[in-house]
Amino acid sequence: MAITVVGSVAYDSIETPAGRRERCLGGAATHFSLAASFFTDVRVIAVVGEDFGPEQEAVFKKRNIDIQGIERAPGKSFFWEGSYLDNLNEAKTHITDLNVFASFEPKIPDAYRDSEFLFLANIDPVLQRRVREAMPDVKLVAGDTMNYWIKDHKPALLEVLKGLDILLINDTEAKMLAGNNNLVQAAKAVIDMGPHTLIVKHGEYGATAFFGKGSISHSAHGDFHAFRAPALPLEEVVDPTGAGDSFAGGFFGYLASQPELTPATFRRAMFYGSVMGYFAVERFGTERIQDLTRKEIDDRFILFRELTHLD
Amino acid sequence: MAITVVGSVAYDSIETPAGRRERCLGGAATHFSLAASFFTDVRVIAVVGEDFGPEQEAVFKKRNIDIQGIERAPGKSFFWEGSYLDNLNEAKTHITDLNVFASFEPKIPDAYRDSEFLFLANIDPVLQRRVREAMPDVKLVAGDTMNYWIKDHKPALLEVLKGLDILLINDTEAKMLAGNNNLVQAAKAVIDMGPHTLIVKHGEYGATAFFGKGSISHSAHGDFHAFRAPALPLEEVVDPTGAGDSFAGGFFGYLASQPELTPATFRRAMFYGSVMGYFAVERFGTERIQDLTRKEIDDRFILFRELTHLD
Repeated sequence: MAITVVGSVAYDSIETPAGRRERCLGGAATHFSLAASFFTDVRVIAVVGEDFGPEQEAVFKKRNIDIQGIERAPGKSFFWEGSYLDNLNEAKTHITDLNVFASFEPKIPDAYRDSEFLFLANIDPVLQRRVREAMPDVKLVAGDTMNYWIKDHKPALLEVLKGLDILLINDTEAKMLAGNNNLVQAAKAVIDMGPHTLIVKHGEYGATAFFGKGSISHSAHGDFHAFRAPALPLEEVVDPTGAGDSFAGGFFGYLASQPELTPATFRRAMFYGSVMGYFAVERFGTERIQDLTRKEIDDRFILFRELTHLD
Repeated sequence: MAITVVGSVAYDSIETPAGRRERCLGGAATHFSLAASFFTDVRVIAVVGEDFGPEQEAVFKKRNIDIQGIERAPGKSFFWEGSYLDNLNEAKTHITDLNVFASFEPKIPDAYRDSEFLFLANIDPVLQRRVREAMPDVKLVAGDTMNYWIKDHKPALLEVLKGLDILLINDTEAKMLAGNNNLVQAAKAVIDMGPHTLIVKHGEYGATAFFGKGSISHSAHGDFHAFRAPALPLEEVVDPTGAGDSFAGGFFGYLASQPELTPATFRRAMFYGSVMGYFAVERFGTERIQDLTRKEIDDRFILFRELTHLD
């Protein structure tokens, strides 16, 4: 089944202890859709400027990603410059130029309307909500957000959460959103805000899914429980940019590829999320995911199984 | 097979967000031996003062722990006072009174000499080494240490590491010991110092075992690989004191209870370590582990399996 994703397609200038890259292709919707494209059909809604050319288009087309929903606008594409010199787990933002994104009005192509899965990547919650409302019949909606929206746009974000099945955020964001420093208590509070499932990403420690009422795993396991997908410690993290979006792409892409949503498919989806997030950081920007093969993905899935399974 | 453990038997005064306890029974050897006693025979080497009475003895005896190696000395037992008010992951030490421990000369009872497993709990590496040398024929030696010994007693500690099969420390300690902020690189460096296996404890994220040459899993899986045991996020951590020692006790106790050391028993041992560490923090001091049943342990093992396994 097809996924529609709305989010940023952008240029990133990134500095990490491993080096520096100028204006490489980035943005949450880019990372998400590339990762998800290994599992299912992906359709992107975004806006880019006149600096988005055939070279960038080719990255999506090579992975059969539908980009008729990427609108071209006069001006420049979203640009972000950041570094991870002190701490690989947290980006330091130097420049955020919204450019054409400042006046973005998401439009949904007719050909996208039969998408059964919708992913609201990290953008202004006002836009997330608009896309959600324009696609009321999707089967499953997941979304991401970040500290900026939690802190300064909470009322709009809370409206988005009411329309989500699954929210994916990191530890700090989950605790900030709930105003509670205990992760389990925070997870319960976030689930009360709307999503029946909360996936909390722990960076190199993996990710935990918390299931509430109405979640895929609820009927099988009862009221409130959890599943943890591992990450493998890495000898060298080249660039953490896009790791979370790649996790989301692997996770949601695998779910959408399955004929049925069961607790078992959900668990496998968590593993595929970890696998894609893990590949993403091995090189700058989208370099590693662009080059990936399905065999590499499945081999790493087996590695993650061996890393965590008793036999 | 029996385990001999050398380490502290002490009194702790502890303050956490959940409350305060005065002079409860503590010490690394206490937490370790109580946890290990659910799996195998445990023998303790330590020193206590005149304040260690029948009530404290009874805690060990109820769990069939051999305490003939606990020496009584004139004076007071080791006393520690600490709090976890700001951060449940890091104790703030207010008072450390070595008392009778200041002049401790470990003596190994003859009845302990056939122990096949030796655990060197967190004490002065000079003492750890002396006990190690006095028991040259043990089958497997594991040990623990802490930032204080790494920082200020490194040469003595390095001597201990040469005689260890397995070292158990936390993330910060592993990175500090190796002088390297990347966990995988740090693990490789620590393994080069002596132990063929390094277990790094991640608190609420679980623990990772890194296997080098000569380790139990080496022949089955090749040069350098890892296994991760989970921890469950907790809704309330009452008191983190002793969690690491309880992990070590569950881990080493289960290993010692098995007829053969295989990669599969090692993995199960990691899970039992996580299970015991998880119980330890549910109440103050040794309260929870004292009350535990084997059925509760096995139920939680199953829970950890469900938390991490695909099917």
